[in-house]
Amino acid sequence: MAEPSLVFPAQEFRGRVARLQGEMKTRGLDALFLTTAADIFYVTGFLTRFWESPARPWFLIVPAVGSPVVVIPSIGAALMGRTWIEEIRTWDAPHPEDDGVSLLVDTICSLLPETARIGVPMGLETHVRMPAADYQRVAQGIAPRALVDGTDAVQRVREVKSEAEVEAIRTTCAIAGRAFARVAEFAFAGQPLDQVFRDFQTALLQEGADWVSYVAGGAGPSGYADVISPAAAVPLQRGDVLMLDTGAVRNGYFCDFDRNFSIGPPSDTVRKAHDALWQATEDTLSTLRPGMLARDAHRLLSEALHTHGARPAGGRLGHGLGITLTEWPSFTPLDTTPLREGMVLTLEPGAVVDGDRILVHEENIVLRADGVELLSPRAPSALPELS
Amino acid sequence: MAEPSLVFPAQEFRGRVARLQGEMKTRGLDALFLTTAADIFYVTGFLTRFWESPARPWFLIVPAVGSPVVVIPSIGAALMGRTWIEEIRTWDAPHPEDDGVSLLVDTICSLLPETARIGVPMGLETHVRMPAADYQRVAQGIAPRALVDGTDAVQRVREVKSEAEVEAIRTTCAIAGRAFARVAEFAFAGQPLDQVFRDFQTALLQEGADWVSYVAGGAGPSGYADVISPAAAVPLQRGDVLMLDTGAVRNGYFCDFDRNFSIGPPSDTVRKAHDALWQATEDTLSTLRPGMLARDAHRLLSEALHTHGARPAGGRLGHGLGITLTEWPSFTPLDTTPLREGMVLTLEPGAVVDGDRILVHEENIVLRADGVELLSPRAPSALPELS
Repeated sequence: MAEPSLVFPAQEFRGRVARLQGEMKTRGLDALFLTTAADIFYVTGFLTRFWESPARPWFLIVPAVGSPVVVIPSIGAALMGRTWIEEIRTWDAPHPEDDGVSLLVDTICSLLPETARIGVPMGLETHVRMPAADYQRVAQGIAPRALVDGTDAVQRVREVKSEAEVEAIRTTCAIAGRAFARVAEFAFAGQPLDQVFRDFQTALLQEGADWVSYVAGGAGPSGYADVISPAAAVPLQRGDVLMLDTGAVRNGYFCDFDRNFSIGPPSDTVRKAHDALWQATEDTLSTLRPGMLARDAHRLLSEALHTHGARPAGGRLGHGLGITLTEWPSFTPLDTTPLREGMVLTLEPGAVVDGDRILVHEENIVLRADGVELLSPRAPSALPELS
Repeated sequence: MAEPSLVFPAQEFRGRVARLQGEMKTRGLDALFLTTAADIFYVTGFLTRFWESPARPWFLIVPAVGSPVVVIPSIGAALMGRTWIEEIRTWDAPHPEDDGVSLLVDTICSLLPETARIGVPMGLETHVRMPAADYQRVAQGIAPRALVDGTDAVQRVREVKSEAEVEAIRTTCAIAGRAFARVAEFAFAGQPLDQVFRDFQTALLQEGADWVSYVAGGAGPSGYADVISPAAAVPLQRGDVLMLDTGAVRNGYFCDFDRNFSIGPPSDTVRKAHDALWQATEDTLSTLRPGMLARDAHRLLSEALHTHGARPAGGRLGHGLGITLTEWPSFTPLDTTPLREGMVLTLEPGAVVDGDRILVHEENIVLRADGVELLSPRAPSALPELS
């Protein structure tokens, strides 16, 4: 495996760094300090499932001027060496007394003046992926340089996808679309839901997913009580609505959409709720535009659900999507993030069917100057029946 | 899906809380504040792949006396309601102005006196999974109650597995063992490595994995340059050594072991390196005992590799295992964590074969009073050949 491990040409990553540096200048930041798999993949192209091990922290400094520098465990040096990053500093992790802290402090102090303000993603939908005690040691070690809120500088760049990113997400959506088209092969009355989940993951892999980071769903006679549970060994029954939702991954980019199926003919109640979800999505696909706010997407979907006779479920009705299963913004009544051309988003209306039972419906889109372009193959207007 | 979602009976979780409370008393802590998927699953049994979405933080307070309290997004209420946890407080997340912070602060202040010392895992191999700015707001909001280092209180409990946990890990190891036994079905000369990775994940699902959180590996004529890379579309060739490593998951518990295969007959160099790895593991399986330290395991493996004519690769030579792919301790020369009865561990010796090329070999074990019990089906002593 000696070939470069870049998903994209180096020019793609240089463009990202240039856009981050533009935001830094606007916001008076001298650098960004990044620690998560997503942020580090975004800048470097370093793609590995090794993040699944919580043992080691990984650090990336993106200065406002100049090239990014990574400070990483030596186990990652070979793979990082095949990305476009040239400045790679390593230590032997995990180290019980000094797990990269002094190397990171030295690196920051050598790169940045004492007056430096260093942005760290510390706002909504972020976390710092390193030991909290070491984060404090770094803050003290680099003083008077200051760690300040860099959430906006990162999110305003990452949320607008390049055409290469849109194409990557479209590819993953197509993989999931092909797997959804095969659900009748493995989902039918009498089949336990946990086996359906396994077979769905297999179908996603067979259709080209590199791995399947997320599968959820549910099944029940008037929908499902929640949409995040793992599957139990409960057989599907005639009259159930089965929902499968996936975040499959190809080349580091996610899809995130679901599909519903009726086991045997659906009840009138279920059919009406599904029709309302489909129509509300259809309406919003034709009305959503750049320049609106995230809360406007919530309003459009909620109003369309009411128009079509459904009661909107609680929670957000869509969100960003890309190198994590979900990204900001959130389609809630409170989120005022401007929707911009190039954003990849999910439309995810939910409707209350009966008591605590809901149906959800989801598509993936990219916002274009003149409206919405679908990335997921559009769900059929009529709820599909399985035997 | 109305049935309880507990992997274990409630008694298992009550025992865990009792052991955490014992550690808290020893260490002068009045509560633990936990935020990660692993820590929250450990205490509550709340198992979902929804953690893949970084959008929402989840909070758990385990007081030194009394029952745990969760403060979670309302989307998780239904699933959490099917665990043994009784005190569930929710808010509608993500909320741009107050994403659970005031509810968490109110909860902590109502549960704990102003003198309280609240342990947070903030040491090696931890992170706090919530926005760093909100963590600061919580720290200020609960003052004079103090957030202090609670790493040891959590790790000393979690590292010793109950028999129910050992059985869960044994089950996952058996699943992976059956998948490894099928590698000849899909790995052979001419087959691209990325397709081998997909088929291996499919085999893991078919053999009973709920999902596959980790697959890595490599292939090359004298081993592989690193063990964390995703697969490229490069065909296997006669003379390659193929290594596959997996962290599959069943009921929330991981395995983590690898297997090597020779495509056609191995070279003498490769065969000798593999024999040394197998023998060094065999030696350590018979000598490792509770009462040793983590660094002793590193020494035993290193010395055995030298004895059998191999040069140990850098990095750790094993680690803990359980509800994450890797857990502390680390078999390095520096880790002085005592090895205790009931710890589930990996033995993971690596040998340098040629230049930057290495071979690695891994087994999963549980430490018993009188020695080691294997949880993974033991690798064959001779490197298996594929066609």
